[in-house]
Order: sequence, then structure tokens, then C-alpha cells
Amino acid sequence: MLVEFEDYKFIEGGICAAKGFKAGGVNAGIKAGSTKKDLALISCEKKCAAAAIYTQNKVKGAPIAVTKRHLENGVAQAVIVNSGNANTCNENGIEIAEKMCVLTANALNIDDADIIVGSTGVIGQKLSIDPIQDKIPELASMLSESGSSDACEAIMTTDTRKKEVAVEFTLGGKTCHIGGISKGSGMINPNMATMLCFITTDAAIRAELLQKALKRTADITYNMVCVDGDTSTNDMACIMASGLAENKEITSEDGDYETFVNGLYAVMMNLARETARDGEGATRLIECAVKGAPSEEVARRAAKSVISSSLVKAALFAADANCGRILCALGYTEGDFDIDRTEVVLLSNKGSIKVYEDGVSLPYDEDTAHDILSADEVTIAVDLKSGFHRAVAWGCDLTYDYVKINAEYRS
Amino acid sequence: MLVEFEDYKFIEGGICAAKGFKAGGVNAGIKAGSTKKDLALISCEKKCAAAAIYTQNKVKGAPIAVTKRHLENGVAQAVIVNSGNANTCNENGIEIAEKMCVLTANALNIDDADIIVGSTGVIGQKLSIDPIQDKIPELASMLSESGSSDACEAIMTTDTRKKEVAVEFTLGGKTCHIGGISKGSGMINPNMATMLCFITTDAAIRAELLQKALKRTADITYNMVCVDGDTSTNDMACIMASGLAENKEITSEDGDYETFVNGLYAVMMNLARETARDGEGATRLIECAVKGAPSEEVARRAAKSVISSSLVKAALFAADANCGRILCALGYTEGDFDIDRTEVVLLSNKGSIKVYEDGVSLPYDEDTAHDILSADEVTIAVDLKSGFHRAVAWGCDLTYDYVKINAEYRS
Repeated sequence: MLVEFEDYKFIEGGICAAKGFKAGGVNAGIKAGSTKKDLALISCEKKCAAAAIYTQNKVKGAPIAVTKRHLENGVAQAVIVNSGNANTCNENGIEIAEKMCVLTANALNIDDADIIVGSTGVIGQKLSIDPIQDKIPELASMLSESGSSDACEAIMTTDTRKKEVAVEFTLGGKTCHIGGISKGSGMINPNMATMLCFITTDAAIRAELLQKALKRTADITYNMVCVDGDTSTNDMACIMASGLAENKEITSEDGDYETFVNGLYAVMMNLARETARDGEGATRLIECAVKGAPSEEVARRAAKSVISSSLVKAALFAADANCGRILCALGYTEGDFDIDRTEVVLLSNKGSIKVYEDGVSLPYDEDTAHDILSADEVTIAVDLKSGFHRAVAWGCDLTYDYVKINAEYRS
Repeated sequence: MLVEFEDYKFIEGGICAAKGFKAGGVNAGIKAGSTKKDLALISCEKKCAAAAIYTQNKVKGAPIAVTKRHLENGVAQAVIVNSGNANTCNENGIEIAEKMCVLTANALNIDDADIIVGSTGVIGQKLSIDPIQDKIPELASMLSESGSSDACEAIMTTDTRKKEVAVEFTLGGKTCHIGGISKGSGMINPNMATMLCFITTDAAIRAELLQKALKRTADITYNMVCVDGDTSTNDMACIMASGLAENKEITSEDGDYETFVNGLYAVMMNLARETARDGEGATRLIECAVKGAPSEEVARRAAKSVISSSLVKAALFAADANCGRILCALGYTEGDFDIDRTEVVLLSNKGSIKVYEDGVSLPYDEDTAHDILSADEVTIAVDLKSGFHRAVAWGCDLTYDYVKINAEYRS
């Protein structure tokens, strides 16, 4: 279920909801024997203001290096991205990533320095350019305004569902759109960036402000998602703004900027939530909402600590109200707060129960608790009662299937 | 398999190997319906120099608070500990922990301020004193020099095997002993302390030095073990020294002190390794040995980062040489080193293969790799080539059974 926002209307169309963008996705056979779509292309009819944030992992995929270089001038016009192979830790990785850009540029008749390139999949296996080279012309010729869903499908790895969100809103009387697709299911503990996330908008906004908006929004959305505590080598979130909505270009942090950032939040927060929900092997979405923290940093740490605890995650797989494990996870959060004043409430659409207060576990009815925790979306609400800061983090339960998926991933 | 040390002979007897100590364990029925031993007692015929280190979790079990108070003077004579209930987050926890000490002191006719008390098990459920009160006299009357194994059994929770190690060595011509038992299988990511670990020695050594030796040794043994990244609320490692070996009392950091510390390392390192091997659901022990780090701190972080990665752990369950995941985990280690110079070798008693060098994944034979990684003990050897510091961390693979055990723990 998407979280709704006033003044922003959720619409269909994903990355093609914004004016000027087309997309598509095909099977190029990057992983031998797989018939899944594995090559995606997003393209705009004009050059866009563009921004991106990247993984903080010391090991970085070759596409990250190439994209960084291409975005130095804040301009991009297309995205080429493959799944099935991360093109990371390979001798010829940069060369392959650059070739992907050149091939795409030639097919679209644009500049290869205006191409964003991404790869996701297994690390440390050579990526052959041949299947990509063969398919790019076909992919370029079939780009369409209804291609968001195909592109979204083509970037999936262990994802079980497409993550595609778009909103419509107005800026100075002009109708604007922001849409995004993302992939990511395991190796998820983003740091400054995320899995792969591609966002488009037709709002006119300067590249520097686009960068600022993306960073600020990622910090409170993608950077608050944890599936397994592993930060990927290929994380990247990028955004392109075509300006075709013809609003007055956003050039300072004014009211229009706030409106734009809120729209971006509506898209990225929902994509982030859907990513947590689709965590490898997950059966339910877990949200930890912390308030009463002495600083935003402590609120963030506490929320992520609960969401990241393997023991909390395993207990929630069994819909078990194991309050001790939640307290334990809060207890190893760094920061100045008094655990004895902390209050913990478990809630879902089936009801709520307070399980901890004043340093003591509260008695509760096991059946009621089990019923509440059996919902598709469960919230752990924590009040540290030590200040006025808040944060929300998203995660999922830990299941047999997480182990199964990751023990068998390469085979 | 124990790791051997020159000049230290591994012997039987556990915590009763050192002169003056007796131990025992019984079923007190702390967990309704369970017939497993759940109450352990260790006692010395005289007052001992004593030291302990405790969990850094903000949530601390009531026994931790009581033990801390009792050890302020560096003296102890007995340990009472139960499994089945952590006596944590309970309104009357301190009262119960104190009662356990008084009952034990009365049964042994010693001072209740000389008792170390511990509890382990479910957090947030009231611990009744009744079954403990009923059983302490019987337990006190059956203490024996062959009781280490029973005590060890009584502190186990989800552990599948007893962790019991003792060594014999000489100090100034006198035969000395150090022996220990420990429990811990899940919720293991010790921070300054560990699960529960009780060590005895007949060496004569001052309490301050005992404290220093325990802290120093825990930092490179227990604090380098990670099963699931969760730091327990009841972690505690304590040591009692009877002095009955009649060596010249160790009062400064001299050669005798070094000999003692090395003996303590032989015991605690092996207990720590056995703890990692018995991680919840584990099928194999994983060791990550890092060298070439710019500082010990970076070496420790890198080793723990690899050991703690859910994705590395799941890959090793399948004996899959997924080098990318190891690199990825090294890549998100904080610290100043160049990932492109890093070298990674996988080894076991079945052989070794180099999988990464100079920023590139190396080709290897999949069958050979699978064979090497199928061993009971697997080492991931990492050379950061950025300095001269080393560290070793121990962990285990992530399996279906980890999820099963933790989804069902409370039921």
C-alpha cells in the first residue's frame, strides 16, 4: 500500500509519467539461459539537468566511475542499465561500461558523455559486451511512453515485484510529474545512496538543486532501509529533469523547491518502503518509527538498530512479540538516552499493544499480539522520551527464504 | 579442534581443573516442562581475587548490576547462574538476583557479597525465585571436583555443545591451571564482554591485574566473535583466582604476568572459537584473518565486517566461493586502506585458492573451491597491504536453522 500525501496525486506511468521520457526493456541474454528482461533504456527527447548519489562502499562497480565522470557537468539525456552482472571487480570493467555508453549514444544519436550507465548482479564475473551490443539498436527502436514497466522489470535481480511510483503536482500553475523505478532486494543497507533507482521529472530545476534535493531525500528514505546490513558496491540513485512542464525554473530553495522536494519524498519514500517489503525472502514490511530522541542522528541510529537486528527480524517472521529483542537492539544503539524511560508500542492495521514502559516489559495477551504482528505491515513505535527528534526506518522479517536465496544465488 | 599453544597443555576438568574449585549443575525447572539442567554453581574453598567484564548494552540484566556491586572489592568465592530466563527488564529483577546470592551464601556458609550471579534466557519475563530456592541446598551439597561439565550444561540455552577448556602451565616452577566454561549461541556480537563465561585459576594474581588480563584477552577473543550482530543484555565474563597453586603472587606486568595472560588467551580463544562454531544453526566455523592493516582497529573492523556479513555467511552455508561478497564486506569497512591492493585467499584443511588480487577477481576452479569451503573450519585470509597490523575474527555460516531457532525460540 502506498503512503498518500496531500496535494500529490499518485498516477500510472512510472519514469514515463514526466513529459519527454521514453523507456524500454528487453532480454539480451546477459545471464546464460535466462529469458528474463535484463537490459533497460530510459531516454529523454532533450538534454536534462541531472544529479546522482553513489554507494559509499570502497569497492565500486565500474559503471559508478563512468557515470560520475559523465555527470560532472550536471547534464544527462539517457540511462542504459543491465541486470545479471554487476560489472564490478573486473579488469576490463571501465572499458565495458564506456562501450555501453557509446553504443547507446550511437543508437539514439546523442552524446555518449550524456549517458548514465548502471549494472547490477553478480560481482567479480566478466561482463561480455556482445549480447548488449546486439540488443541496443532494437531496444532503442522500441522505446515508448508506456515502457516504464519493461525497464523496471529489466533491472530486477532477486526482486519479486516491480517498484514503480509516479506523482503529479503543480508548480506555479503548471502540472509537473516525478516518477521513479528502483530495484533492490538483498545486499541492502544503503549509505548515501541505494540499490539502483532512476527518477525522472519534467519540472525545471537547476542541477545543483536537483543534487541537493536528491541527497536530502535519500537520507530520510533509501538510507533508512535495511534488509541485511550489506551495502552494495553498485548502489546508485539518479534523477533527470527535462523541464518540459514549463514551470519557472527552480533556482533557489524557495517554496517551489519545497513543493518539488515533497513530491520527490512521496516517490522515493514509497519506493524505499516497497524495497523493504520486497526484501529477500520477506513476508512482511517492518517500520520502526522513533520519536523523543535527543538528536536526529540518535533517532536514525535507534530506528535502524531495531530494523537491522537479525533476532527482531526472525521473531517477526513468527509474528512473535519478543519485546526483549527490540529492547536489546535499542540498548546497543550509541547515543545519549535513558533506556528506562523508553516506551515501545507494536501496531498494525489489526490493533496496537504497548509492550514496554518505565524499564519493565508489560504483560499482554499473546493471541492479540500474534494477530497484530501477522499483518502485512507492522510498525514498532518507540518513544525515547529524551528529546524532540524523530526518524523512521524500514525493513522486513528474516525468513528461511532469505537463506535459500542467498545460499543459491550464484548457481 | 582446539588450537594448540606451546608450553600450555590442554587438560580435562574445565573450571574444576584449578585447585580449590568445585562445581555442579541441576534441573530446577525454571522453564516449565524442561528437564534440562538450568542452575549451575561454582564454588572455591577460599576467597578469590576476582574480576569481570560486562555487556555494553544499555539494557542490562539485573544480575549484571548485582555482580558489579559484589565485585567492587575484587573478591569473590562462588558463582550462581541460571539459564531459561535472563531476569532482564523485570520490575523485581534486582530483588531476585540478590535473593539468589543470599540463598547461595547461606547454603555454602559464605558471605553473599562474595557471590557472582548470572542469568541467561528469555528477556522480559519474570523469574520466580521458588524453583531456585528449592534447589540451591541440594546443588550446594552435590558440588564436586568433577562437576564442571554439569555446570557447563546448566548454563546452555540454544547451545548444541558444551564449551569447556582448561590448560596447565608453570609459573616459577609451580604448576598452575586456568579453566573455563561458556555458553552462547545466538545474540552474539560481544562488546567488551561476552555471552556468559566463567573462568577459574589457581594462580596467585592481584585483582587489578586479573581485571587487566581479562579485558585485554577478551578484546582479542570474545570481542572478535560474531554470530548475528546482536549484543546481548546479559553478557558477562568473569574470572576467579584462588592462589592455591602457590606461585609467587603476580603483582606487576612481568614475565609471569605474560605467561598467565598467554594461558588465559589459550583458554578464552578456544572458548570463543567453539562459540562461533556453535553459532545458532551453524554448519561450519569461519575465521577471518586480516593482516597488512594500517592499525589494529582497522584490522579488527575488516575481520568483523567479513564475519558479520549475512551474504558472506549465506554463501558459505552453500560452500560457494562468492568472492564479490567478501570484497563488498571489506569495502564498507571504515578505515584508510586501498581496496585495490587487497589480496584474498580462501583456505581450509582441504587446500587453498587465491580469489582476489590487484582489484580483480581471479579465475578458479569451482569444484576445488567448493571442496575447500566444505570443510568444518574455513579461513578467509585477507592482506590489506597497507600496514603491519593484524586481527582475527570468528563467526559461522547463516543457515535455515538460524531462522528456525530464532523464529521459534519463545514457544
